[in-house]
Amino acid sequence: MTLIDGRQTSSQIKSEIAARVADIVATGKRAPHLAAILVGHDGGSETYVAAKVKACAECGFKSSLIRFEDDVTEQRLLEEIQRLNADSDVDGFIVQLPLPRHISEQKVIEAIDPRKDVDGFHPVNVGRSSIGLPAFVSATPAGILTLLSRYDIDTKGKEVVVLGRSNIVGKPMASLLMQKANPGNATVTVCHSATKGIAEICRRADIIIAALGVPGFVTADMVKPGAVVIDVGTTRVPDSTRKSGFRLRGDVDFDAVAPNCSYITPVPGGVGPMTIVSLMQNTLLAACGDIYPAV
Amino acid sequence: MTLIDGRQTSSQIKSEIAARVADIVATGKRAPHLAAILVGHDGGSETYVAAKVKACAECGFKSSLIRFEDDVTEQRLLEEIQRLNADSDVDGFIVQLPLPRHISEQKVIEAIDPRKDVDGFHPVNVGRSSIGLPAFVSATPAGILTLLSRYDIDTKGKEVVVLGRSNIVGKPMASLLMQKANPGNATVTVCHSATKGIAEICRRADIIIAALGVPGFVTADMVKPGAVVIDVGTTRVPDSTRKSGFRLRGDVDFDAVAPNCSYITPVPGGVGPMTIVSLMQNTLLAACGDIYPAV
Repeated sequence: MTLIDGRQTSSQIKSEIAARVADIVATGKRAPHLAAILVGHDGGSETYVAAKVKACAECGFKSSLIRFEDDVTEQRLLEEIQRLNADSDVDGFIVQLPLPRHISEQKVIEAIDPRKDVDGFHPVNVGRSSIGLPAFVSATPAGILTLLSRYDIDTKGKEVVVLGRSNIVGKPMASLLMQKANPGNATVTVCHSATKGIAEICRRADIIIAALGVPGFVTADMVKPGAVVIDVGTTRVPDSTRKSGFRLRGDVDFDAVAPNCSYITPVPGGVGPMTIVSLMQNTLLAACGDIYPAV
Repeated sequence: MTLIDGRQTSSQIKSEIAARVADIVATGKRAPHLAAILVGHDGGSETYVAAKVKACAECGFKSSLIRFEDDVTEQRLLEEIQRLNADSDVDGFIVQLPLPRHISEQKVIEAIDPRKDVDGFHPVNVGRSSIGLPAFVSATPAGILTLLSRYDIDTKGKEVVVLGRSNIVGKPMASLLMQKANPGNATVTVCHSATKGIAEICRRADIIIAALGVPGFVTADMVKPGAVVIDVGTTRVPDSTRKSGFRLRGDVDFDAVAPNCSYITPVPGGVGPMTIVSLMQNTLLAACGDIYPAV
């Protein structure tokens, strides 16, 4: 069994990005610039945004953090998005989710210029990715593709079972892996809350991608010997032995499943670090105009 | 075994649309208006466009057919699309594919205002549909959903195998059937040219949707007793007994498969007529502003 080390891979990729940024800056151009909008003070969101700002520094990017209080109006937020859309100094930006209930996340996502939508949540990017055109791809599925590729895990003709059909992980993951591409060319099945016989379906899989948000859902009897298991789950479960009072648990019963796998990602340290590095890769693509060439 | 009668269902729906159009016109509003651009004189395209114009008449729609010769420039075609985008008398329009090689189909598709894209090919509509937002859905998958719905075929928790991953049938079909919706909520597997063990995968299916374009591909041994079989294939095969010199063959070996099914669509007369009726439904939605409310 090989443990897929997301921390090491992400460090490696950040070094590669930093080297490219150094080259860009050496030609006299400015460094890529990622902006993040953070509304309120949710603990998880604070942590994620701080990690993104730190990753920008490691990659040699400029970053800007724009904060609003919980009571910001939707209108004010949309104005800020228009400002960032128009700001030629900003290559890409994200609005950290979730947002307070009085703000429509969908309206916010659709207000972002697709050319700066480095989270890949805008329908234009979702649609372009689905039909095989260059697009900003949602960071988690993109990070998983990168892991599969860096670990030379062949996906062509493999049976892949994706657990979960969220708009930001399950659906784009399935869409990417069925493309005529490499990684890709897999036979993909998507399971969800209405699926019957999910254990049996999992047992068919050469590759399982678990993104349900149900800690320990994938048990040893659900995994074919030699399968590849990618765990996207990061649920906070109470843990009185930790200073934070919680620890992260994945969707996979790691200790029982791992001995049976060919490859497996741990939680934490697997998919998580790759998500942030994918955002960095998208920002670099945005800065270089690789997805949407300047018109 | 129940034969799914696409001709009858489509006639029924056209009558329903015509009744709604009569109501709309009775309130003093104009009838829905579909425009079609046809480039060149390809036999198949001529047939399809003629059928669409005829369906418009049956639904009480106004239709316009705009013809260009094969040597029209891409620039001229894009100008015509801009004119239709801006023409408030036109609710929706299509550009009949395929186009001559010197014209980029993708550029043409992306030039269409998504609010008038009644073929549902624009990335915005593909993306919105994928994330569960109101959208114009590609006509063939939309027609299949309508058939499943009108024949009360339950899809929730069913294993659906989609054969083919084209942008206009396989991918959107899979995307629609995995949504938390009705029809939908199915456990969907997409098979394609790189899939291994396709016969065995088909045998798992409660519902098979065959959209490969390979005549007779689905044989009796690939179908579980009682399965539902939807045949999207319409390949022209030579037939000297016909005046036209050809007949249409589906992807399913109908005579051998049909006795084993609970429901099956014939070719012709199954999915085909539904494709055109879905285009009519999309045009009605466009005229009523149901997908994209006027801003």
